[in-house]
Amino acid sequence: KINSARLWDSLMEMALIGPGIAGGCNRQTLTDADSEGRHLFQRWCQAAGMTMGVDSMGNMFATRPGTDPDALPVYMGSHLDTQPTGGKYDGVLGVLGALEAVRTMNDLGIRTRHPVAIVNWTNEEGARFAPAMLASGVFAGIHTEDYAKARRDLDGKVFGEELARIGWVGEEKVGARKMHAYFELHIEQGPILEAEGKDIGVVTHCQGLWWLEFTLTGREAHTGSTPMNLRVNAGLAMARIFEMVQAVAMENQPNAVGGVGQVTFAPNSRNVLPGKVVFTVDIRTVDQAKLDRMRAKIEAEAAAICEALGVGCAVEAVGHFDPVTFTPDLVTKVRSAAEKLGYSHMDIVSGAGHDACWTARVAPTTMIMCPCVGGLSHNEAETIFPEWAAAGADVLLHAVLDTAEV
Amino acid sequence: KINSARLWDSLMEMALIGPGIAGGCNRQTLTDADSEGRHLFQRWCQAAGMTMGVDSMGNMFATRPGTDPDALPVYMGSHLDTQPTGGKYDGVLGVLGALEAVRTMNDLGIRTRHPVAIVNWTNEEGARFAPAMLASGVFAGIHTEDYAKARRDLDGKVFGEELARIGWVGEEKVGARKMHAYFELHIEQGPILEAEGKDIGVVTHCQGLWWLEFTLTGREAHTGSTPMNLRVNAGLAMARIFEMVQAVAMENQPNAVGGVGQVTFAPNSRNVLPGKVVFTVDIRTVDQAKLDRMRAKIEAEAAAICEALGVGCAVEAVGHFDPVTFTPDLVTKVRSAAEKLGYSHMDIVSGAGHDACWTARVAPTTMIMCPCVGGLSHNEAETIFPEWAAAGADVLLHAVLDTAEV
Ligand SMILES: NC(=O)NCCC(=O)O
Ligand SMILES: NC(=O)NCCC(=O)O
Repeated sequence: KINSARLWDSLMEMALIGPGIAGGCNRQTLTDADSEGRHLFQRWCQAAGMTMGVDSMGNMFATRPGTDPDALPVYMGSHLDTQPTGGKYDGVLGVLGALEAVRTMNDLGIRTRHPVAIVNWTNEEGARFAPAMLASGVFAGIHTEDYAKARRDLDGKVFGEELARIGWVGEEKVGARKMHAYFELHIEQGPILEAEGKDIGVVTHCQGLWWLEFTLTGREAHTGSTPMNLRVNAGLAMARIFEMVQAVAMENQPNAVGGVGQVTFAPNSRNVLPGKVVFTVDIRTVDQAKLDRMRAKIEAEAAAICEALGVGCAVEAVGHFDPVTFTPDLVTKVRSAAEKLGYSHMDIVSGAGHDACWTARVAPTTMIMCPCVGGLSHNEAETIFPEWAAAGADVLLHAVLDTAEV
Repeated sequence: KINSARLWDSLMEMALIGPGIAGGCNRQTLTDADSEGRHLFQRWCQAAGMTMGVDSMGNMFATRPGTDPDALPVYMGSHLDTQPTGGKYDGVLGVLGALEAVRTMNDLGIRTRHPVAIVNWTNEEGARFAPAMLASGVFAGIHTEDYAKARRDLDGKVFGEELARIGWVGEEKVGARKMHAYFELHIEQGPILEAEGKDIGVVTHCQGLWWLEFTLTGREAHTGSTPMNLRVNAGLAMARIFEMVQAVAMENQPNAVGGVGQVTFAPNSRNVLPGKVVFTVDIRTVDQAKLDRMRAKIEAEAAAICEALGVGCAVEAVGHFDPVTFTPDLVTKVRSAAEKLGYSHMDIVSGAGHDACWTARVAPTTMIMCPCVGGLSHNEAETIFPEWAAAGADVLLHAVLDTAEV
């Protein structure tokens, strides 16, 4: 078993970098805080005897050698970036849980045939730069590096320039590494495991997603002197689209969600009807056909809503992945590890997207989940208990040892 | 009659300061561009033989002496600040039309018993700092200077500090000046005069207004892994409030409006349900009882909408004025001037708020309107024709001469 106290200490130490305003973290990707977090992680890996490689997207790979020089590494990892008002565990547990697994192997002098490596993926959250899981997407050949490096945040800052600014453009070619397997430990970010009283979620699938960025064009006009019948009201169209997305999600229950997290009004003045409203609809479900139907319905109904109001409507997909089925062999290994260690477990579908969704395209992949209090995540109040983290890291260690061949 | 070409040249010269991105202006209050515009206006007034006084809210008063040392000045004016994506005429016509009236008096050697003065009021638009007509409101004793100087923009910058920064804190005590009368020339910002083919609007009333700033508190949570039934969705509550405000405005037709121009989501991340949504509802009508009923209904229904979703709802009135009836004597003088000069005219209610709404509390006040193309304002495409501007300035000149006693 791993050292629960050491894992917890590392989680708490990382959380001091990019502290939030309400007990959580604001360590958004490609900020100075992100760079500081990377340096700490690098120091820890070096202290654990690992060698660090960084690719040109800033993805970090720390390797512990195996006994067979020809064997591909078994990877484990997640991300150290957070939401602007994020928690201390989302992503971080997967990276530091992996580090704790390696530290435990070192403590016990365990050698594996395959090398074991830890990854920290750049910009998993997609908070500053859409889409989420950007750098693992380049790694898996889903996005080109040019596309990724040209992404802009809301202030217009460019991904490639920000990565260079914080000093983490590495030498490795993105995607050059081949993986024997990839394991990602993550908090559930949903309420199921806690409600069912299970220690471990054996993740079999992940929901697919569309991020649909709507740009609505109204007519800027005075809120006081413009009669109701002369308005081209993009804000009202937005409101109707919100309500419609809610309805589409509800009529696709169970196992479907839809909502909006980001909205920008322009010129955003109290007495000006907006000329431009930009917002991103986020829809997800694990059923591919349902996901496609939801997208089609939302786009058609949004177009009709806008047309009725004379509002211009453009839609761009700024994020997408299909539902994922994880590698059955590895899923079995996770289930067996939980079983062997005596942790209660259940099969579960990931509601959130993860870097594992992209590595699944290029390597045998699976995930391990542990509960979080109230299912709350993407919130500074996100909470887990040391025992929950330890159970997850234990299962990770054992599934990885099983795969890397002791 | 005034010199139409000179008036137009001055309008065009002022429009070069704080140019917009689409042919209009971005000369928001207390920006460097605002300061530059003030300096140009000051130079023009000095060249016209006027003396400039500035009060501690940055309101500018340029005076042309009268023949009677005991007579109170007749004021005319408006504002030189603009919306972030504003037009070249909103406010500016009232200030530079007044300047043109003085220049014409100078050309013709006209002396008046009462001094004649031109005002440029600070922060009429309310775009950076709510409420609108802030400094004329302090002048009229509606707001305290402390309240006004503590107002903050969306970046958290403070009114008093920004006024000092641009160097326009004057020596005069705000509101110390007494006015014999106040005239404000302004573009209509609505469609009526153009549709009716009239040169001049004789403004009899102004709609009252409420700006209701809603702060909705939801629960930040992951858009993907948070089931629909566990969401505390402040964005959805906002959408329902938008639709409800639209319904309240429509059921109060004719002569009532309601809409939203400013929205802020927090943390404003695509995959986070917002924890906080702040937006301002703008409602107006000329009927006091109706205005109060609309406000009460909107607040009650918003509370019910939020309660049904479990969303917290706080409302603050960040702007308000009651409907205004302008001084009948002065209204008659405007109508007579239009008549005498041969301009077609009609009585009209101002849809927008103006500094005249506050001076009306402390001095005989009225307004003169000229049409604008398509009724479009608070839009860089705001357009008027030189003849329209000239007709307005002509009527202003004659109504003022009538009042200031030639
Ligand atoms: N796990 C997680 O929060 N990922 C961010 C991408 C997403 O929105 O699912
Ligand atoms: N005239 C004008 O646009 N005033 C701004 C204040 C308002 O009416 O919203």
